[in-house]
Amino acid sequence: MGLKVYLSGEIHTDWRERIVEGAKDLDVSFAAPVTDHDASDDCGVAILGAEDDKFWHDHKGAKLNAIRTRTEIEKADVVVVRFGEKYKQWNAAFDAGYAAALGKALIVLHGADHQHALKEVDAAALAVAEHPEQVVDILRYVLTGNLP
Amino acid sequence: MGLKVYLSGEIHTDWRERIVEGAKDLDVSFAAPVTDHDASDDCGVAILGAEDDKFWHDHKGAKLNAIRTRTEIEKADVVVVRFGEKYKQWNAAFDAGYAAALGKALIVLHGADHQHALKEVDAAALAVAEHPEQVVDILRYVLTGNLP
Amino acid sequence: MGLKVYLSGEIHTDWRERIVEGAKDLDVSFAAPVTDHDASDDCGVAILGAEDDKFWHDHKGAKLNAIRTRTEIEKADVVVVRFGEKYKQWNAAFDAGYAAALGKALIVLHGADHQHALKEVDAAALAVAEHPEQVVDILRYVLTGNLP
Amino acid sequence: MGLKVYLSGEIHTDWRERIVEGAKDLDVSFAAPVTDHDASDDCGVAILGAEDDKFWHDHKGAKLNAIRTRTEIEKADVVVVRFGEKYKQWNAAFDAGYAAALGKALIVLHGADHQHALKEVDAAALAVAEHPEQVVDILRYVLTGNLP
Amino acid sequence: MGLKVYLSGEIHTDWRERIVEGAKDLDVSFAAPVTDHDASDDCGVAILGAEDDKFWHDHKGAKLNAIRTRTEIEKADVVVVRFGEKYKQWNAAFDAGYAAALGKALIVLHGADHQHALKEVDAAALAVAEHPEQVVDILRYVLTGNLP
Amino acid sequence: MGLKVYLSGEIHTDWRERIVEGAKDLDVSFAAPVTDHDASDDCGVAILGAEDDKFWHDHKGAKLNAIRTRTEIEKADVVVVRFGEKYKQWNAAFDAGYAAALGKALIVLHGADHQHALKEVDAAALAVAEHPEQVVDILRYVLTGNLP
Amino acid sequence: MGLKVYLSGEIHTDWRERIVEGAKDLDVSFAAPVTDHDASDDCGVAILGAEDDKFWHDHKGAKLNAIRTRTEIEKADVVVVRFGEKYKQWNAAFDAGYAAALGKALIVLHGADHQHALKEVDAAALAVAEHPEQVVDILRYVLTGNLP
Amino acid sequence: MGLKVYLSGEIHTDWRERIVEGAKDLDVSFAAPVTDHDASDDCGVAILGAEDDKFWHDHKGAKLNAIRTRTEIEKADVVVVRFGEKYKQWNAAFDAGYAAALGKALIVLHGADHQHALKEVDAAALAVAEHPEQVVDILRYVLTGNLP
Repeated sequence: MGLKVYLSGEIHTDWRERIVEGAKDLDVSFAAPVTDHDASDDCGVAILGAEDDKFWHDHKGAKLNAIRTRTEIEKADVVVVRFGEKYKQWNAAFDAGYAAALGKALIVLHGADHQHALKEVDAAALAVAEHPEQVVDILRYVLTGNLP
Repeated sequence: MGLKVYLSGEIHTDWRERIVEGAKDLDVSFAAPVTDHDASDDCGVAILGAEDDKFWHDHKGAKLNAIRTRTEIEKADVVVVRFGEKYKQWNAAFDAGYAAALGKALIVLHGADHQHALKEVDAAALAVAEHPEQVVDILRYVLTGNLP
Repeated sequence: MGLKVYLSGEIHTDWRERIVEGAKDLDVSFAAPVTDHDASDDCGVAILGAEDDKFWHDHKGAKLNAIRTRTEIEKADVVVVRFGEKYKQWNAAFDAGYAAALGKALIVLHGADHQHALKEVDAAALAVAEHPEQVVDILRYVLTGNLP
Repeated sequence: MGLKVYLSGEIHTDWRERIVEGAKDLDVSFAAPVTDHDASDDCGVAILGAEDDKFWHDHKGAKLNAIRTRTEIEKADVVVVRFGEKYKQWNAAFDAGYAAALGKALIVLHGADHQHALKEVDAAALAVAEHPEQVVDILRYVLTGNLP
Repeated sequence: MGLKVYLSGEIHTDWRERIVEGAKDLDVSFAAPVTDHDASDDCGVAILGAEDDKFWHDHKGAKLNAIRTRTEIEKADVVVVRFGEKYKQWNAAFDAGYAAALGKALIVLHGADHQHALKEVDAAALAVAEHPEQVVDILRYVLTGNLP
Repeated sequence: MGLKVYLSGEIHTDWRERIVEGAKDLDVSFAAPVTDHDASDDCGVAILGAEDDKFWHDHKGAKLNAIRTRTEIEKADVVVVRFGEKYKQWNAAFDAGYAAALGKALIVLHGADHQHALKEVDAAALAVAEHPEQVVDILRYVLTGNLP
Repeated sequence: MGLKVYLSGEIHTDWRERIVEGAKDLDVSFAAPVTDHDASDDCGVAILGAEDDKFWHDHKGAKLNAIRTRTEIEKADVVVVRFGEKYKQWNAAFDAGYAAALGKALIVLHGADHQHALKEVDAAALAVAEHPEQVVDILRYVLTGNLP
Repeated sequence: MGLKVYLSGEIHTDWRERIVEGAKDLDVSFAAPVTDHDASDDCGVAILGAEDDKFWHDHKGAKLNAIRTRTEIEKADVVVVRFGEKYKQWNAAFDAGYAAALGKALIVLHGADHQHALKEVDAAALAVAEHPEQVVDILRYVLTGNLP
């Protein structure tokens, strides 16, 4: 048994690296969105041509990114969605809803202060964790049956 | 032709009433989440018993609400998701992702200031509007071919 | 909004009647398996001919009953599964798994003493109730937003 | 042709080992739930934090286990569900219903004394066996056409 | 509860009429292929123009008939397939396979002499009957719980 | 039996009217795209605001029209796609591919001169007709078994 | 590009061998039912215990065979169904219907004398061939673009 | 992460070669229809026998080609559809609709002059490009996050 795990959400801390590092002995293949903020914002116009209107600038980029994110979510067995301390992070919640509707195993990762605001997202999850290391522990347990 | 339209998201302004009122001559049936904020928060414990832990208090409520929201989204032809000025509104973005994964026709409704933060959600939509009256105009056009 | 609700499981108490009676003012249509124990056991041989072997006697009956139960579960928006005090009730758990895999909104109804044994079934549910009246309250809340 | 086989159900006898050993010359990959009873019961709180309430203790664990069980059932070609002599084993019946709804080839394994109580589960199966060696024989026949 | 029942297969005896007549007090809507043999054979060329080659003559007709048969099978809750005494009746077996793959409740109706040749079809069915009246009894039981 | 029929494609002749008129005695409900060419082209900017760039002008309109066309194709039992004498009509071929992938019964309507260019579209159809009256004859035959 | 091809139907001539031999230079993996007639008939009772009644003898065997055939058809890209000169071969037509409903690319292989009786099956196919070598030619063309 | 990319549409220029060459350092597997125009036109009759009627000549060929095209589109993660300067290219638009209905990530490639005529196809796409090199840039960005 191997698992395909998609790591969605917050891009300003090292949570992905900590999970990937912690799970390096496990049969897991990780995927993620493009986490270079500028590239992610500007990919559409950089490849397909400039736009005067910021809406279409963003639109072209968001659609290019969707080629990657939707494909990866659809291939994933497990989708982990991380909500950080800052920003609206609506794309994270969107991914969670997308994954839930596809019946993916959903793990939500966030601090206690977001608990009430994320209650609908948490309600669709099979696990709600606070720390990246807990996600590693979950993956280890799911794959090997071993507890920390 | 008739349309089933689900109105998801912000519950603090009268946008739903304005759409329903504006579309009253159209063959549309509307559905929505429970918009009574207190009832929505406390329904789980009110019916199924109190919880000491706020997380489970919220969890029970969010799951009861999901009986309604997921059922209605799955039945809908069109899902309108409104993002207001305040709060995280992650449940709105979650609903948008859920609807997108099911292939529903998605209309997003928000002010210009949210444009960048909602670019991934907008990218999945068939229309992005600023005012509830535009949603009425869309429904009228879709159903009758008449423009405002 | 109306709901189709399938009432699966225990057939030896009046829980179905209590739910149907309690919800009679709501826009709900209920369905259920054949609850006449003898008819349910013997329907196969009564219609399709006797069997010497008890296994095939049961098999023919179980398949006839499946025409009803699977059709109704597939049509339902909400599936309520009741576990009573006695018997193995594996068909109830089977129905719960069947409904869960189809993405139906699942409500499980059982006494506190079954809590540990039913943890996997409860984990797939959107509500776990102890009393039929709580199911009525859930249906009322889901349909009208009103709490008890 | 190779087969992915998920071995669900009873965890107190060596039936899984007997099937895996008997099928070691066949192109079969086996999967199973975590069969360490204590780990399976306590995984949720061990990783995600203690709960005062036994219901939520169990709930967190059952959901973590579901990450593994649902993923594996969805990947399987054949699901074998074993019912032992003791306990309620509602999770086994739940898995059978889940697998049936997904259209998996279902093999049920149980003693003759459970025949009547399992008739609805058996009715959804493509084979009903009493001994693990019969499951090996089935897998060998399905893969090679050879009979015992 | 109402049932949509599609009556596929043999067109040379009055089995459909006997089922429809017997079930006239039940909440069942019946559908069937075009049972006028000549019309069914020649519909393609009659509407879309003559063909020199018998293969294409038949092909055009079979496709027109498929508009009806596939649409009706997909809408049906229950598919009854009747095999008569004569002819190859491969379209009946095709319909049975089509219905089985869609997860429809399948009832097969045939005489004892066809038992061995139809074993794969029967194995996919929830009931195997010999007489049209048994199909009526099944529909009555499924809908009302009453046995003959 | 009733049929939902979607009439896609060419908007410059009266073929839809001829089909609707010819089938007025049949249990058919028809749907179609907005056939007012100007409204269809400009609906996006008329409702959601002007665009400087013609691409986005068209884009907004095409997406609004997709709310109607995709919803209607998904609800249809039969999709008729008409290719006229002029223009590229790529949206007609797109609709045909969309309908084919959803497993809809597809009827293609075009003149003999388009036969070679439409061979891939025709190959996915259950009927290829030249005249609207043939579509009426097909619908009558499918619904009643009567030939012209 | 590689293809998974399932070879269903007649088991009394060497058509499978001729296709496998002819395609040995192509990137095709073939699957087939158990073609040992006696094993196929008796597998159920040989593994799961004797039955007095021939119907159940056949039933147990047909279900074991279905573990293989349905799994393989679901995994296949292309399903070839061969109808020979003798016997009813309803299982072949059943497989064709099953494959058609799953949207598999269907190739039917039969002699000209069966043309009329198989018109509904042929109408669901992407190719109708008379000789196994034509199936090889099709596979070669599909994979390489080379014609004979 | 690797991508399966299907290259549909125009066969008269070297756009496929330019994409394949440009992406040769990426983890992409490409597929395409048979691009030999004569082979594609005549494959049906070359393998399955001549037809007097051009319609059936084309029909047999189009269906053989569909074995390849539909199988490849269903396996693809990304479908690129190229519209060239000449011909009707309805098969390209058909493929685009087919891919869209399956939820594939769609990239449309065409010159500015086709912008209005392709607006419905473009509206279903995640990217609209003018040059094959832009498709390479998209694939590189999607796979590596690197911009040109």
